[in-house]
Amino acid sequence: MTTQAYIAANKDRYLEELFALLRIPSVSTATEHNKDTHRCAVLVQEHLVRAGVSKAELYPTEGHPIVYGEHIIDPDLPTILVYGHYDVQPAAPLDEWNSEPFEPEIRKTAIHPEGAIFARGATDDKGQMFLHVKAVEAMIQTNTLPCNVKFMIEGEEEVGSPNLYPFIQKYKEMLAADVILVSDNSILANDVPSISVGLRGLSYLDVKVISARQDMHSGTYGAGVANPINTLCEMIAKLKDENKRITIPGFYDDVVFPSDEVRDMIRNAPFDKQKVMDGPGLFGLEGETGYHFYERTGILPSCDCNGIWGGYTEEGSKTVIPAVANAKISMRLVSNQNHEKVAVMFADYFKSLAPDTVKVEVHPHHGGNPYVTPTETVEYQAASAAMAESFGKVPVPMYSGGSIPIIAAFKEVLGIETILMGFGLDSDGLHSPNEHFGVWNFYKGIETVPGFYKKYAEMKSA
Amino acid sequence: MTTQAYIAANKDRYLEELFALLRIPSVSTATEHNKDTHRCAVLVQEHLVRAGVSKAELYPTEGHPIVYGEHIIDPDLPTILVYGHYDVQPAAPLDEWNSEPFEPEIRKTAIHPEGAIFARGATDDKGQMFLHVKAVEAMIQTNTLPCNVKFMIEGEEEVGSPNLYPFIQKYKEMLAADVILVSDNSILANDVPSISVGLRGLSYLDVKVISARQDMHSGTYGAGVANPINTLCEMIAKLKDENKRITIPGFYDDVVFPSDEVRDMIRNAPFDKQKVMDGPGLFGLEGETGYHFYERTGILPSCDCNGIWGGYTEEGSKTVIPAVANAKISMRLVSNQNHEKVAVMFADYFKSLAPDTVKVEVHPHHGGNPYVTPTETVEYQAASAAMAESFGKVPVPMYSGGSIPIIAAFKEVLGIETILMGFGLDSDGLHSPNEHFGVWNFYKGIETVPGFYKKYAEMKSA
Repeated sequence: MTTQAYIAANKDRYLEELFALLRIPSVSTATEHNKDTHRCAVLVQEHLVRAGVSKAELYPTEGHPIVYGEHIIDPDLPTILVYGHYDVQPAAPLDEWNSEPFEPEIRKTAIHPEGAIFARGATDDKGQMFLHVKAVEAMIQTNTLPCNVKFMIEGEEEVGSPNLYPFIQKYKEMLAADVILVSDNSILANDVPSISVGLRGLSYLDVKVISARQDMHSGTYGAGVANPINTLCEMIAKLKDENKRITIPGFYDDVVFPSDEVRDMIRNAPFDKQKVMDGPGLFGLEGETGYHFYERTGILPSCDCNGIWGGYTEEGSKTVIPAVANAKISMRLVSNQNHEKVAVMFADYFKSLAPDTVKVEVHPHHGGNPYVTPTETVEYQAASAAMAESFGKVPVPMYSGGSIPIIAAFKEVLGIETILMGFGLDSDGLHSPNEHFGVWNFYKGIETVPGFYKKYAEMKSA
Repeated sequence: MTTQAYIAANKDRYLEELFALLRIPSVSTATEHNKDTHRCAVLVQEHLVRAGVSKAELYPTEGHPIVYGEHIIDPDLPTILVYGHYDVQPAAPLDEWNSEPFEPEIRKTAIHPEGAIFARGATDDKGQMFLHVKAVEAMIQTNTLPCNVKFMIEGEEEVGSPNLYPFIQKYKEMLAADVILVSDNSILANDVPSISVGLRGLSYLDVKVISARQDMHSGTYGAGVANPINTLCEMIAKLKDENKRITIPGFYDDVVFPSDEVRDMIRNAPFDKQKVMDGPGLFGLEGETGYHFYERTGILPSCDCNGIWGGYTEEGSKTVIPAVANAKISMRLVSNQNHEKVAVMFADYFKSLAPDTVKVEVHPHHGGNPYVTPTETVEYQAASAAMAESFGKVPVPMYSGGSIPIIAAFKEVLGIETILMGFGLDSDGLHSPNEHFGVWNFYKGIETVPGFYKKYAEMKSA
């Protein structure tokens, strides 16, 4: 039986198994879901065993466990290390979901006429992580695995992988591999395959503006005291200039923009503005003057408020001047920006924007550095050839706006480059209500992965 | 027995009765407290009966009932109409209270060495409303009531008195009186008595900034789309200029500032900056360049965010660009500003500040016009004389920053001026956690009110 025949014969079971995985609310940031998250790790471990992987272990950490697996068929053959994560973002706001976030449901959409799986984690990253497990199962069960494979599936990607950093440092030898393969990203469209060659880094901070010990009556004090909400808004407004360029002093010092050739390639990649807007239902696109949407989201850094709260936010009205206002602010980083350096720059600048009638607290959350995949390598060529074969089109090398903070650390600590071979779409609503993953994309991923193994093993031995 | 002897003999019972009133969580804005709010109205009605008031009725409304009472001893004598409210602000944020908000407790403070009653509504307005009931009880029970008295105690002051407006229109004749007497405000300090001669008006609006149909991943979209939180912050920041002057076009057109003489009086009123800051624990005072704190909070309008929310506001981090951001914004109005006109001005201007990548919704909540008490009247002279006698010092006429929206309507609809004879302190934490009312102040109010009745009856008949 060929690998592809095995995949075709087991399609329905693969989908059912993914559904079971999606039913577990493995929300890593929410402590009340700790048991669910652990249960999810165990299920991933079971699936590695079921796939035929000879070694499948759970490594406990101070947070959620790391699932590690390896199947070494010949120490002289190249080794592929698959990285993914079984944890998911919180499902909130719940009332914006059209079906239960942890009860997967297939519905057709304009972009996914063959149906998409709606569930938290469908595309980020359970569906995309699981397709590797199923592809490897198909190769092992049909005796077509052409090289060694290792799995490192963590449960804390959505909270910045705090325990994966010490793990890769401690188990550097065990994790030795020739390339890291990751599907935690997207293609441009189902008929426009692409490979991510850049990931933005991330600096995420909580800020708090405090004006007093207690809330005040807005009549008694209004116009005579600092209102920390207004002050916070004024400070946030100053983070960008009128061209939407970030104003933090020194922020761009470490940014080296890609060559004009690369920028041309980005600007000329297939782009359908209306389709981009239709995904999340945007009223328009907006960003730094003089840059294309793909440049803004791929090679430019960002500065976004991810959350804000303060004062009275319930039904009705309350004429209060609050004592405190809070925000969560994150920056996507590019090129050579360092997340720790940026967090310090941000904190210094943000505090400098405050009048002396308030106190400002800044707490860095977690971060990660940007990463760029070299494209003139055997690894990239094998990935490109595998996708070309399976999609019928050579994939476009694209800068992706998202962050997988650990990828830069893989390079720094393990010395291994990563291939970001995604199968989702940006419009799949990752981190949002109604997250989904095309059924077509799930199967296309399972079918493409063995091609990469085969071509990579051939190219490496050539 | 004299009035004052009766008051002295019943002090403990008065305090116990107030405690029972404070135990009822009559939060008018919260529908889950509707039964409590109704129970509170009934208790006020019972107290009018217990005081000896000949007529005490509950007038149902579309919201919470209005308690009406009257005691006419001679139609030829002047009539005082007492207005107050039995509803309270929500107690949130609960974790900032040092005792249960609806279980009153007496604790000593630096400002209240004789003890203060800590409870939601202690000063705003249950304590101050109730002192009138108890003063009238003392006069009726000792046969010293020198004029007629009417009571109109509502349960919707904290939500803008929506049903009191139709009530005063419908019952104009029943409510006929010579003066309205209200204690829902403050004195400058226990040794600096004052009478409020100005109340600011209020325009309160909910605003919503929408950029998309659903939340987005901050990696995929960050720097390429409008973030409605950032946009909302930028719009709020533009509501004031660098001198903290409100920028809404036409906003100041109807403002006629008091004369230099009055402004001098305001600037020269006893003012202890440190004490003002110590009340709510402020780090500093801040307001429009060139104005004194009392001017900023008394004769200048304000523009404050009372609440803001959007995106992820829970524990941990979520890298989301939300689709929607919300704020509650209110303006205190002065002089001839009209709250309906201001609400329209605000909505037009606020929408004009938005880029075309977002949609903006503005919903006016409730409002009220400013009010100024004439001071060269028998009513004001009687109030001033009564306070001078009871406090041992002539009270300072002061502009108060708060709003009692219905007061302007009393003048417009009933044609009656109001005397704002408060006994609380601005530092009593009204609308805030740990609201309290000095025990000394509660009794001082009960003792002062009969003096006003006596002097007013004498002056009117002179």
